[in-house]
Amino acid sequence: MAKVKFEIRDGETAGELTEPDDASLYFIGRIETPFKTLAECPRQGVVDGPLCRIEVFQDFADGLKNIEQFERLQILYWLDLSRRDLLTQNPGLKGRISGTFALRSPQRPNPIGSSMVELVGIEGRFLTVRGLDCVDGTALLDIKPDRCKFSDNRCQ
Amino acid sequence: MAKVKFEIRDGETAGELTEPDDASLYFIGRIETPFKTLAECPRQGVVDGPLCRIEVFQDFADGLKNIEQFERLQILYWLDLSRRDLLTQNPGLKGRISGTFALRSPQRPNPIGSSMVELVGIEGRFLTVRGLDCVDGTALLDIKPDRCKFSDNRCQ
Repeated sequence: MAKVKFEIRDGETAGELTEPDDASLYFIGRIETPFKTLAECPRQGVVDGPLCRIEVFQDFADGLKNIEQFERLQILYWLDLSRRDLLTQNPGLKGRISGTFALRSPQRPNPIGSSMVELVGIEGRFLTVRGLDCVDGTALLDIKPDRCKFSDNRCQ
Repeated sequence: MAKVKFEIRDGETAGELTEPDDASLYFIGRIETPFKTLAECPRQGVVDGPLCRIEVFQDFADGLKNIEQFERLQILYWLDLSRRDLLTQNPGLKGRISGTFALRSPQRPNPIGSSMVELVGIEGRFLTVRGLDCVDGTALLDIKPDRCKFSDNRCQ
């Protein structure tokens, strides 16, 4: 997919960032969604949203052992179409300027998406899930079980 | 802090990974916790846990505008003491081997920690929070508002 250039909008501010190099990531898989363009993506994924498919690359497939015991998973993915230098943003051009860290916008210094999904099915190294909001072809970073299973705390 | 070498344990498997270079991260701040060693860290953070302090570096501080309106925040951080090649793990040496993606262990290909915290206070570019589980000095990657505020869906 061609890289989209996001223009800065009224009231927004951008920092002057050097190239990021504090830590590096593996792309461990690929996410297939029905959203072919950013314009088609929902603002947030919902667990009754459309079926999506997560491919885990062969090198990492052994990491899926026992994942079938979880109904809900946290998925981390890389929003590579994002602009990384925006510090304040004007979402929906409504004139209410907020800092990037007070928004779940994909435009952020480290554009890591995080969604909770419902696990619908597994075939080998492919998971079928509901609850994603990202564009088709997005790179997968991590799969974690729902933290509610690991805490006496209220569900987070 | 000195890098800890994690030995592989009974039943665990490691992949042969090349150096990661698919995407790069900024360290945007630093997290102070009372946990001075990995052994002191809780298994998961809890929102009635000890007070911790998140410093956002000056270059990114404008991104905090309006963050005070949120009671709960999602924090992403970089678990740089982690071993990244483990595909199956033997947590607690209990002999129940699970894949890395069926565990919330810090040992994972992309060692990104994710916790939901309670925002207790703000002073400039320093946030006081409860709910973290990471070692003192951990690098901050992102702050996002609780996604529950952005969805009609049940709280995720």
